[in-house]
Amino acid sequence: MKLVLIRHGESEWNKLNLFTGWTDVDLSETGIKEAQTAGELLKEDGYDFDICYTSYLKRAIHTLNLTLEALDREWLPVIKTWRLNERHYGALQGLNKAETAQKYGEEQVKIWRRSFDVQPPALEESDTRNPRNQEQYRAENKKELPLAESLKDTIARAVPYFEDVIKKDMLAGKRVLIAAHGNSIRALVKYFDDLSAEEIMGVNIPTGIPLVYEFDETFKAVGKQYLGDADVVAAKMASVANQGKAK
Amino acid sequence: MKLVLIRHGESEWNKLNLFTGWTDVDLSETGIKEAQTAGELLKEDGYDFDICYTSYLKRAIHTLNLTLEALDREWLPVIKTWRLNERHYGALQGLNKAETAQKYGEEQVKIWRRSFDVQPPALEESDTRNPRNQEQYRAENKKELPLAESLKDTIARAVPYFEDVIKKDMLAGKRVLIAAHGNSIRALVKYFDDLSAEEIMGVNIPTGIPLVYEFDETFKAVGKQYLGDADVVAAKMASVANQGKAK
Repeated sequence: MKLVLIRHGESEWNKLNLFTGWTDVDLSETGIKEAQTAGELLKEDGYDFDICYTSYLKRAIHTLNLTLEALDREWLPVIKTWRLNERHYGALQGLNKAETAQKYGEEQVKIWRRSFDVQPPALEESDTRNPRNQEQYRAENKKELPLAESLKDTIARAVPYFEDVIKKDMLAGKRVLIAAHGNSIRALVKYFDDLSAEEIMGVNIPTGIPLVYEFDETFKAVGKQYLGDADVVAAKMASVANQGKAK
Repeated sequence: MKLVLIRHGESEWNKLNLFTGWTDVDLSETGIKEAQTAGELLKEDGYDFDICYTSYLKRAIHTLNLTLEALDREWLPVIKTWRLNERHYGALQGLNKAETAQKYGEEQVKIWRRSFDVQPPALEESDTRNPRNQEQYRAENKKELPLAESLKDTIARAVPYFEDVIKKDMLAGKRVLIAAHGNSIRALVKYFDDLSAEEIMGVNIPTGIPLVYEFDETFKAVGKQYLGDADVVAAKMASVANQGKAK
């Protein structure tokens, strides 16, 4: 059983170095090209799929659309769920990362970005950024929607969704493609690779590079591979790791 | 209860005046603009949706994607089904409409295009255009896939899908948007307006113009309206009506 995960490429806010979280910003021109390249890499290696999952956020949805376009697989079923959304960055959403580092200190920002169970400052209930006030989440159970999340919180809603829904498709023989975000993919990687809280803090998911997992019949991960040029993958991982540093 | 239907805009093959049917050609630049305009018209008039339906064909899927982008509703669930595909034009697919008219006569082409129950020449079982041989339909019940369709055949697979699936969503209070094709929309229009075989032959669905139906609680159509400028709508209907004429 194989599973392919793609982290969306550069968004308009990645470019500006702002905390994005659930802010629904679009891909930049670079991000569009990254998605197209991801599709071409999958096509070159002969990958095919039966069903796709993505988040409620357009940077992931557009990444999936562009990947499917490159694969000539627009007709595949696509399931969207907020449970694959990026980690919710609470009141940090919209702040410049470098400024936040200057204000709170680089260490505090690193803790918020890389720690396992420390939540960033939560949104006020009345905040327009509160998903309970947003059209996008109007059909969801309001009680489940976060005001801020630690990585632990992101795991607590992404992994059960994987177990309850996606894993069932895989066990039924379906080839699954997931287009999601740095932290929702990290949540799944921690689960697949059985990593500790400390270990997952050191994992950086490169953007726009298909990550292929292979599982045995007991659903143990027995293989893991990024497609494409190893130097490109390494450079992208380093770039993600550097994002939280004050400039 | 309201329902909005959009016929996809100009495709690469519409431009070349070829019989398209289930051939999976993309939108032209004009078709892309038509889809964006459809989304803007819906947005201006305050339309919103809970679920979307489209076909397996990328000209309809891309029309829906562009409409949802204009509405900032990319996160809505989208269901794809071949039962909303264009009418299958059998062995005519890929032929130039004007050439076909010269070869078979304008009247025969008009019969194939506008008649209720006359099928165009069927595909051979071994033809690569046979959907039973195509990746795109690999998950479907092969016996249900056509080798050629009359409008009657298109109705026989589009209307039961509407009744079994889409209507249930509407009765559950969901606002539905359908992005589809000239003949699958015509199938629904015949059903909603209770038209005769002769009457539906005279109906031309303009491209890229949202068609809004209103139903009462017994599901009787009590209102029908094309959004946007009436002259544009009339010109587009006339253009569709002229497509079958020899040049």
